[in-house]
Amino acid sequence: MSATAIAFPNIALIKYWGKRDEALIIPQTSSLSLTLAVYPTTTTVSLLSESAPHEVLQDGAPMPQAAAAKVARFLDHVAELAGTTRAARVETSNAGPTGAGLASSASGFAALAAAASAAYGLDLSPRDLSRLARRGSGSASRSIFGGFAVWNAGSDDLTSYAEPVDDARIDAAMVLGIVNAGAKPISSRDAMRRTVETSPYNAPWVATNPTELAFMRDALRRGDFTAVGEISERNALRMHAAMLGAVPPVRYLTAGSMALLDAVAELRNTGLEAYATMDAGPNVKTLCRSAEAASVRDALAAAAPGIEFVIAEAGPGVSVSDHGVSVSGQGPTAIAGPGAPR
Amino acid sequence: MSATAIAFPNIALIKYWGKRDEALIIPQTSSLSLTLAVYPTTTTVSLLSESAPHEVLQDGAPMPQAAAAKVARFLDHVAELAGTTRAARVETSNAGPTGAGLASSASGFAALAAAASAAYGLDLSPRDLSRLARRGSGSASRSIFGGFAVWNAGSDDLTSYAEPVDDARIDAAMVLGIVNAGAKPISSRDAMRRTVETSPYNAPWVATNPTELAFMRDALRRGDFTAVGEISERNALRMHAAMLGAVPPVRYLTAGSMALLDAVAELRNTGLEAYATMDAGPNVKTLCRSAEAASVRDALAAAAPGIEFVIAEAGPGVSVSDHGVSVSGQGPTAIAGPGAPR
Repeated sequence: MSATAIAFPNIALIKYWGKRDEALIIPQTSSLSLTLAVYPTTTTVSLLSESAPHEVLQDGAPMPQAAAAKVARFLDHVAELAGTTRAARVETSNAGPTGAGLASSASGFAALAAAASAAYGLDLSPRDLSRLARRGSGSASRSIFGGFAVWNAGSDDLTSYAEPVDDARIDAAMVLGIVNAGAKPISSRDAMRRTVETSPYNAPWVATNPTELAFMRDALRRGDFTAVGEISERNALRMHAAMLGAVPPVRYLTAGSMALLDAVAELRNTGLEAYATMDAGPNVKTLCRSAEAASVRDALAAAAPGIEFVIAEAGPGVSVSDHGVSVSGQGPTAIAGPGAPR
Repeated sequence: MSATAIAFPNIALIKYWGKRDEALIIPQTSSLSLTLAVYPTTTTVSLLSESAPHEVLQDGAPMPQAAAAKVARFLDHVAELAGTTRAARVETSNAGPTGAGLASSASGFAALAAAASAAYGLDLSPRDLSRLARRGSGSASRSIFGGFAVWNAGSDDLTSYAEPVDDARIDAAMVLGIVNAGAKPISSRDAMRRTVETSPYNAPWVATNPTELAFMRDALRRGDFTAVGEISERNALRMHAAMLGAVPPVRYLTAGSMALLDAVAELRNTGLEAYATMDAGPNVKTLCRSAEAASVRDALAAAAPGIEFVIAEAGPGVSVSDHGVSVSGQGPTAIAGPGAPR
């Protein structure tokens, strides 16, 4: 009847950009991410005693209309899976900034999927939880799992889900450079659609994905941090390049982003291995070895004085407390999660 | 025996990026540019009395080795066309910065082609002068002509040449934003090669060129400044996007470039039509109506206080003075040049 879930954002190293099916959120391509140990979303879902409108609160206040409507549609779907029309009350809170390209929708819908499915009495496998989260926000499918996760594009609702990457052999962390924590000028949903519909670079973006993903999985397996970093940075730049090709062009990277890209390249010149990745916003996330994260943060902070930097180690999958009983939704992910045997 | 030529840089609105033939400089795509009335190169070529090494001076001092060797190879080619092995002395000077993405190689090789061909006694048509200049630097083929010029990619040395766009009906100028006048980190020649060889976005960059060029020519013919601007800005961003797709990525745009892109977009929001274009360097050239160039410069200078802005009106084709007789090499370009009937 009531459940609380905590989920963490994830940052893709092989990006998700562009949908094949807008309604079911089936992506054009597979993607691969690292779940982070910062900026969790905490969400409680409580069933209401009778059929009524859903109630959606964020930080104690009604969520803005468009976002609340999306949550309500998601709850309708969960209720339907549970064979009921009962409404629910959602109370959610993000520890990090919302809608700023820091994956708040990934942690948000992962937490909502876990809390809602538990509250409605569904007993979903991690895979089915991933499929459910995907319908709220594609990248949320990956935040079900800790550490590295791969979202298999699939071709329909059944075959499009994330799963842990259980043979990764690198200890990676990210240093988040908060260039701008404000909401982005165009939603990633709209920007993706424009890219798919108008950019001549969308087709090669899609066509090169299987090879890039295979290179990345192989690099993770071999524990080749340099290769992981190089593939990540070029994949991020290619995603932004595909957007730049759209009509009109989509440009998320700002002066602050470019200054950080320069700073990250300069770190490499000085022997500190760091690689940049950027999502639908100006913020630059710097991938580095976990043991070097503090050095990387200090060096970046020195190079870009006005910018806030946050170290994010690899984080866990979603967890749920249901009627006082703690249930881990992360399934087999402990294998690739932080502190797991390697 | 001795001739002096003056040529001006040009900025492409439909970009040249990538060669089909490295030796002959046959491009993958056709391109279209506006010759500017600033930053001329003045070059004097004098035949030496006997067979000897060529002498190449820039601003009175020996030109750096690699650049001088390129000029010497060019002179060898001209001498061969003239049926002689006589060497020449070259004295050249750029009024603008060299190798900074401000088209110094375009003005440079256009001036050299005109001065050398005159000094060696060749009487070339504007088209053949364009073909000759092309062999020094691709974009130089367009600086033979004033105003708007199109370089037809062609498929070999005979068919790859520029010619004036004689039906353009817009009065355009550019405001050059000198983000950085230093030499670029990677030469455009090397960056082009890397793009062609490694970027998955090169194929669609090439495939979309004929349509984009046709849109541009139609917009020029109709005098549709808005369309000319929008096509220009998206073409520039797509060229940079194709480079970002390379391995390793090629990134010429800096924090300063992005700040200017934002400023140009903001100008449009305030009703002043301006569009950005960027070449192999961080500098941002803003296309605007000639009558609004001063307003655009003032607005950009207010938005980006640290940056120098230079207004560049449409400029003339190459001109040559040969033994005291002034010879215009611009041929039919007066039709599209500044002050010409429209």
